[in-house]
Amino acid sequence: MERPLMVFSGQSNLALAREIADNLGIPLGKSTTQRFANDCLFVRYEQSLREGDIFIIQSLTPPVQDHLVELLMMIDAAKSSSAARVTAVIPYYAYARSDKKDAPRISIAARLVADLIQTAGADRVLTMTLHSAQVHGFFKVPVDHLSAEPVIANYFATRLEGLENAVVVAPDAGDLKRASSLARRLALPIAFIDKQRLSDTEVTSRGLVGDVQGKTALIVDDEVSTAGTLVQAAELLVQHGAEAVYAAFTHGVYVGPAIERIERAPIVEVAATNTCAYRAQVSQKIKQLSVGPLFAEAIWRIHRGESVSSLFT
Amino acid sequence: MERPLMVFSGQSNLALAREIADNLGIPLGKSTTQRFANDCLFVRYEQSLREGDIFIIQSLTPPVQDHLVELLMMIDAAKSSSAARVTAVIPYYAYARSDKKDAPRISIAARLVADLIQTAGADRVLTMTLHSAQVHGFFKVPVDHLSAEPVIANYFATRLEGLENAVVVAPDAGDLKRASSLARRLALPIAFIDKQRLSDTEVTSRGLVGDVQGKTALIVDDEVSTAGTLVQAAELLVQHGAEAVYAAFTHGVYVGPAIERIERAPIVEVAATNTCAYRAQVSQKIKQLSVGPLFAEAIWRIHRGESVSSLFT
Amino acid sequence: MERPLMVFSGQSNLALAREIADNLGIPLGKSTTQRFANDCLFVRYEQSLREGDIFIIQSLTPPVQDHLVELLMMIDAAKSSSAARVTAVIPYYAYARSDKKDAPRISIAARLVADLIQTAGADRVLTMTLHSAQVHGFFKVPVDHLSAEPVIANYFATRLEGLENAVVVAPDAGDLKRASSLARRLALPIAFIDKQRLSDTEVTSRGLVGDVQGKTALIVDDEVSTAGTLVQAAELLVQHGAEAVYAAFTHGVYVGPAIERIERAPIVEVAATNTCAYRAQVSQKIKQLSVGPLFAEAIWRIHRGESVSSLFT
Amino acid sequence: MERPLMVFSGQSNLALAREIADNLGIPLGKSTTQRFANDCLFVRYEQSLREGDIFIIQSLTPPVQDHLVELLMMIDAAKSSSAARVTAVIPYYAYARSDKKDAPRISIAARLVADLIQTAGADRVLTMTLHSAQVHGFFKVPVDHLSAEPVIANYFATRLEGLENAVVVAPDAGDLKRASSLARRLALPIAFIDKQRLSDTEVTSRGLVGDVQGKTALIVDDEVSTAGTLVQAAELLVQHGAEAVYAAFTHGVYVGPAIERIERAPIVEVAATNTCAYRAQVSQKIKQLSVGPLFAEAIWRIHRGESVSSLFT
Amino acid sequence: MERPLMVFSGQSNLALAREIADNLGIPLGKSTTQRFANDCLFVRYEQSLREGDIFIIQSLTPPVQDHLVELLMMIDAAKSSSAARVTAVIPYYAYARSDKKDAPRISIAARLVADLIQTAGADRVLTMTLHSAQVHGFFKVPVDHLSAEPVIANYFATRLEGLENAVVVAPDAGDLKRASSLARRLALPIAFIDKQRLSDTEVTSRGLVGDVQGKTALIVDDEVSTAGTLVQAAELLVQHGAEAVYAAFTHGVYVGPAIERIERAPIVEVAATNTCAYRAQVSQKIKQLSVGPLFAEAIWRIHRGESVSSLFT
Amino acid sequence: MERPLMVFSGQSNLALAREIADNLGIPLGKSTTQRFANDCLFVRYEQSLREGDIFIIQSLTPPVQDHLVELLMMIDAAKSSSAARVTAVIPYYAYARSDKKDAPRISIAARLVADLIQTAGADRVLTMTLHSAQVHGFFKVPVDHLSAEPVIANYFATRLEGLENAVVVAPDAGDLKRASSLARRLALPIAFIDKQRLSDTEVTSRGLVGDVQGKTALIVDDEVSTAGTLVQAAELLVQHGAEAVYAAFTHGVYVGPAIERIERAPIVEVAATNTCAYRAQVSQKIKQLSVGPLFAEAIWRIHRGESVSSLFT
Repeated sequence: MERPLMVFSGQSNLALAREIADNLGIPLGKSTTQRFANDCLFVRYEQSLREGDIFIIQSLTPPVQDHLVELLMMIDAAKSSSAARVTAVIPYYAYARSDKKDAPRISIAARLVADLIQTAGADRVLTMTLHSAQVHGFFKVPVDHLSAEPVIANYFATRLEGLENAVVVAPDAGDLKRASSLARRLALPIAFIDKQRLSDTEVTSRGLVGDVQGKTALIVDDEVSTAGTLVQAAELLVQHGAEAVYAAFTHGVYVGPAIERIERAPIVEVAATNTCAYRAQVSQKIKQLSVGPLFAEAIWRIHRGESVSSLFT
Repeated sequence: MERPLMVFSGQSNLALAREIADNLGIPLGKSTTQRFANDCLFVRYEQSLREGDIFIIQSLTPPVQDHLVELLMMIDAAKSSSAARVTAVIPYYAYARSDKKDAPRISIAARLVADLIQTAGADRVLTMTLHSAQVHGFFKVPVDHLSAEPVIANYFATRLEGLENAVVVAPDAGDLKRASSLARRLALPIAFIDKQRLSDTEVTSRGLVGDVQGKTALIVDDEVSTAGTLVQAAELLVQHGAEAVYAAFTHGVYVGPAIERIERAPIVEVAATNTCAYRAQVSQKIKQLSVGPLFAEAIWRIHRGESVSSLFT
Repeated sequence: MERPLMVFSGQSNLALAREIADNLGIPLGKSTTQRFANDCLFVRYEQSLREGDIFIIQSLTPPVQDHLVELLMMIDAAKSSSAARVTAVIPYYAYARSDKKDAPRISIAARLVADLIQTAGADRVLTMTLHSAQVHGFFKVPVDHLSAEPVIANYFATRLEGLENAVVVAPDAGDLKRASSLARRLALPIAFIDKQRLSDTEVTSRGLVGDVQGKTALIVDDEVSTAGTLVQAAELLVQHGAEAVYAAFTHGVYVGPAIERIERAPIVEVAATNTCAYRAQVSQKIKQLSVGPLFAEAIWRIHRGESVSSLFT
Repeated sequence: MERPLMVFSGQSNLALAREIADNLGIPLGKSTTQRFANDCLFVRYEQSLREGDIFIIQSLTPPVQDHLVELLMMIDAAKSSSAARVTAVIPYYAYARSDKKDAPRISIAARLVADLIQTAGADRVLTMTLHSAQVHGFFKVPVDHLSAEPVIANYFATRLEGLENAVVVAPDAGDLKRASSLARRLALPIAFIDKQRLSDTEVTSRGLVGDVQGKTALIVDDEVSTAGTLVQAAELLVQHGAEAVYAAFTHGVYVGPAIERIERAPIVEVAATNTCAYRAQVSQKIKQLSVGPLFAEAIWRIHRGESVSSLFT
Repeated sequence: MERPLMVFSGQSNLALAREIADNLGIPLGKSTTQRFANDCLFVRYEQSLREGDIFIIQSLTPPVQDHLVELLMMIDAAKSSSAARVTAVIPYYAYARSDKKDAPRISIAARLVADLIQTAGADRVLTMTLHSAQVHGFFKVPVDHLSAEPVIANYFATRLEGLENAVVVAPDAGDLKRASSLARRLALPIAFIDKQRLSDTEVTSRGLVGDVQGKTALIVDDEVSTAGTLVQAAELLVQHGAEAVYAAFTHGVYVGPAIERIERAPIVEVAATNTCAYRAQVSQKIKQLSVGPLFAEAIWRIHRGESVSSLFT
Repeated sequence: MERPLMVFSGQSNLALAREIADNLGIPLGKSTTQRFANDCLFVRYEQSLREGDIFIIQSLTPPVQDHLVELLMMIDAAKSSSAARVTAVIPYYAYARSDKKDAPRISIAARLVADLIQTAGADRVLTMTLHSAQVHGFFKVPVDHLSAEPVIANYFATRLEGLENAVVVAPDAGDLKRASSLARRLALPIAFIDKQRLSDTEVTSRGLVGDVQGKTALIVDDEVSTAGTLVQAAELLVQHGAEAVYAAFTHGVYVGPAIERIERAPIVEVAATNTCAYRAQVSQKIKQLSVGPLFAEAIWRIHRGESVSSLFT
């Protein structure tokens, strides 16, 4: 018996879900999410899921908790409605940042949320650019972990007139691994900002490790939210002689003062993929990179039992 | 080794948590809940929980999803911080209303949330007046299920000048069991409203089953949220000759137009316990009944290994 | 690889199992159940189940414990014999009545038995008219919960000469929801018996809520066992002026003095489906309604991955 | 907080339970087991179990299924009533005989039942003389596996006037390990009956391996039920020249024709412990050995955290 | 979607794995096992396993722990690489010998290792001649337990010139069941060695139970490792008048002085299957029996959903 | 009932285990580990563990797989011997390096091994300096994650004559976080080696990011095994003008050519803690730092229910 492919979406990023469905050549599945008077959520599928190969698309963007619970309920409802397989497609897994105990008596929420998703009944997970690669291991079910690196590398390569004079910059010591990988792909040198030092006023000038003098600085990180770190980094790079500053992120959360800050900062352009729903047109400096085709291809391969890793090799 | 008793609270109902701690004669434990720029929650205990007997108080009031995830993170953080035992104290378990499949392809969210709470690590649960008694069975861990019936019965008995001429009214066929129990306790007759009929305009007059003519109607139910059902019920009862209408609920959620509707409705007074935080003083008609001492006593008995059921016999 | 459909049966209701197999157009699978000298059960499948889509039919009729353990062993043996999927078909889930803690220190046996069935290895459950709809949520695996309401509604509609003068009666406050649903389907009014009151001799006459004077009373409930409650209800209805009393149940357990009591009671006819095996011909008043075709259709749809809920809409 | 020791009993062997409680110097805990009209069981504890160290005594004697389900419900009710620890004391674990797949498509019921007991919530198990020692490993929770060997060895040593001329006989090749152990303890030679051969009429005379000529044969096995195997063995031994035949078993199930058969067989005396309730006085040949003090001592040591294995060394 | 059959192998017995793949007519799957500088293992599949029906062949031969951990990592990697089903093929399950608590405070390692294999993600197990049949029940997942008995019976039947004068000998009381089964198949009498007695010097002559005088003794057991027990048994048999001694084992571990001992012992020939990799040619007395075709046939049937037990009937 | 503290040790690092026991003022518990002829391990506790608070010390040093399986068996044996709580003390968790999928179709072995340890029955884990902090989240049970940073910081502070002219160097981009933390503690600048670049011969000179000219370079990393990376780093630093090179590691695995390489390299001294057993005296350049007192203090606090995190603040 063939397991029909069906794609459903939570409320967090309907534009991406539609793009994925379009790329797959199937209609987006019909489901309803409502809110009871007492604020409890209620989800219902409007079509049979029996023996279906179900993909539920939900990014954990603000309001994160509503989107998370909606996802859990959609997974649970799909499983109890006799779906053959349920894949949680989480383009932006926000809680990945809470991946360790950097203070006593806190929750490693990235693990907790992984457990919740599995308790709800997810058979597998498809996600992109987890804050740290180790978060993959917080899941016991199979995870396909897509990388936005090819999309971002392509953006820099086509956006700039030659990369000869550029340098990749990691805005935080913890992100160096990913920045280093992109630098190797682009055959560029690397620098990083010893961020903690920036809060120590007297050693601020020693905050940059590596050389950016006269170069185009390409800041890369997994996510941008309030853009505070980004703006500080851009200013530091300009102080150290960078000629121009570009930035690219996988996840463009852009909350609070983010757009305004970017507008005023010494940054030429900021790009992010559409894992998070945001309106790129609000600023001339903001550019949106689409990962819809990539997710659609991955879903198709998962459904067909074909290699996903070969997408990146 | 003695397991010290500690009581912590989420953000949903600090007033009740403090009242419970006061009744126990201990300070409320120190914990912090913050929100990251990307809207993810972050909880931290500010004191050691090692080998402690931890009670975490959180009602699932709006914003329900934030309060639920905060509760899950507090449970997880407590367990991973070596608490000896964690009891989730959930005075108002909002999702209890989603306790069955009354439509195809939905989630029985009351079971799902029970699973999530246990996945997070709760060793036991203390709650009050679940929408249906069967929700108790959705938990595998031990549950102490308190009843507000004594508090409500006492309210009616002391508020009214004699109950001889009163009748207990269930506003919905599904709630008859609980109303019937209260009626037996107060030695009163019972009536109920066949609510579904109310949406059928031509048979509205047949919506009330039982006799309220010339009587004081005591509406009882587990929760009041927008007060829409309550107001419809009160109006129907007056149409059928009720002399006065009172109402009492375990959970006073009071959302949206609730207060305003109650103000304008033919209702003398509405009472609810403080399982949900709300400002009683906003209306002369709204009365708050405290269950803080009852929860404190239950916690003390759980901590000491004494019978909780004997509280109600 | 196609998963062949196979239907096996425990010892509780072979007639229904054969009816189901006949409706599916397949032979009933061969299995043996024996009893060792020390009273332990022993089950063996006489044909290969490898990669089969196995349905095991067993009602929890007396002797309940033997039938339950036989079911558990059949599930376990099927799973360890490499069945691709095992569905426990439990037309009568007797333990559903133990669905809450209505006394301290008891077992919520409906949840316990659900856990046992899942521990044994059932991948899904197919059942009918659980005592309360919430029992569905005691299972983590998918449940298809059939309703006998259409069969019973059809019985009343065809058995009586017009339903204009009839009233649906719930013999217990706890069952009002289901009776109310049937009443809406038949467009009839409703009444209920405040059963607990009947044990209080002085207020017995106030036990009926609603009007039955001069009407044909249709008692409906989920199960009939000793018929004690039924007979009391019929007598009360006649006292209140009911012209005739009919009764219909999903589950006809008929134990002990049931038949004799019904024979002598002021009841015209009692109908029940064949979820439980019983000999209808023992009394002229007892009528059996078949749910074999309904179960067969549900099994076929589960096997084929088609919607089961659409059977009822 | 001290965990009080409490001992409860199912209906299978109240005499042994009382003997154990007496030996512990505590009253047997109060609990009720009832049967609903539809044959479902119902158990209730009549005293608080909060934080108690609970031991539930139940042998799986006929009716095995009723006793098993009663045990499961008692465990479940104890756990959900906040017992600190629940130990299932199963003097006779009848299903231990179903410990392997000796035919295709059967259940290894000894493992299934172990899973059920753990699903119900047992924290540990105390049992005696499992049919095969490997059944211990079917449980994940800790098991204390008592041996009746010292009691049986003592019985033989004191019952017979000297053991010089005796030989231990295993009535089945599968039981040789246990018989061999007893033989070493008593410093006696060993023989065994190649039982399967007995069904092959032409080689019956080759069924005995070892020498019993002129000796007192001591048959030992884990359980006696219909006594069919026992009587066949005794006759074979007499044919091979045994002077007298004695037999001793851990579990005296004695069902059906057992007593009558023993009365007529060439056996001097049959002994069994009281793990199963039976009336020893029904035959002069039947002797009952008490293991009540041994179980009481084991329970006391488990409760106190003292070594149980040292009981046997 | 068809699930393609793929067979991979750990490092323990590549010859057998290749023989199995050859018999199946497919290439052995490509995987790599490496060792990091710190001695941690690392496994990688060199081809996609998506939706594959994966069989991983690994015998737990020395170095047992390396082979066990390699197997666990291969299972884990296969599952997280989206294999549809993973069957652990363990021709020699060495830990089966640790199947009970024959001393206090030890691990029942056969159960522990079964749990580890299931935790790693194995969906089923295929193995041969477990030390005791009960070990089957240590697994919750389906197990196909092949028997080498037909191969061994065939070996004896073809190797010897007639079996009229032969006797099957079990070298240990614990193995009598299996020896007895082979004896029935070959229509031969049986004897056994009460091994424990051999360490008691004064009763050594009573160590053999049964008659071997003038006969060809066929020693059978599940495994041979150092051959110490084997050689002692052979010498004892010769002392008791055996004319010739042959031996056959399922598992030929042959460690330490095994070959040398066999060379010098009064044994004509020793045969073992190739569940363990060993070089048969090192001694003229050592004969290897192939079970590759049998494993290949079992894998094929499992893959195709056909009966495996019918292989042995 | 008090839970007595007991400390046992596997075979990997008896010296550290004894040091810990000495610091706790208790004798090291008695246990035996043996190896069967077929290479299977066997562990036995020589004293009762009933209701004990058991700590089992085992570092995953070579032979890693033997030490891992020994640990699993010790945990399992302790749990099934009725230990009240079992803490796996793993000073060196070697598999932590396999913490992500950096190639397709591999095992995240750090998660797998965490699952195995929990399946065996560990109630909690105590470890030191996991390769990445996220590995903490691979465990569901509570983990106390000690840091060697204070010990290493103290070593540098006391070993060198003033740190004014020193720079902390991370030998790999992936380790920058930890190096950065140590640098902040010592108030020193930081540099790192873009290791991947070193394999690109033409850009080798750009492999160092940051300034070491004329400074004392302090290389820090979590573990040293073959010392290959260390020696390459030291040579690169000298090429860039470092005046002297020191190195400190938490885990001194020192395998293969490590000592010889260090002897010949331009390094003044290499220090590592004793989480791994090694002979420091084999080289004048190798210094061992003791963490025995730190582990003893942590165990004492865990046993007593006192804060462990406060050890580091």
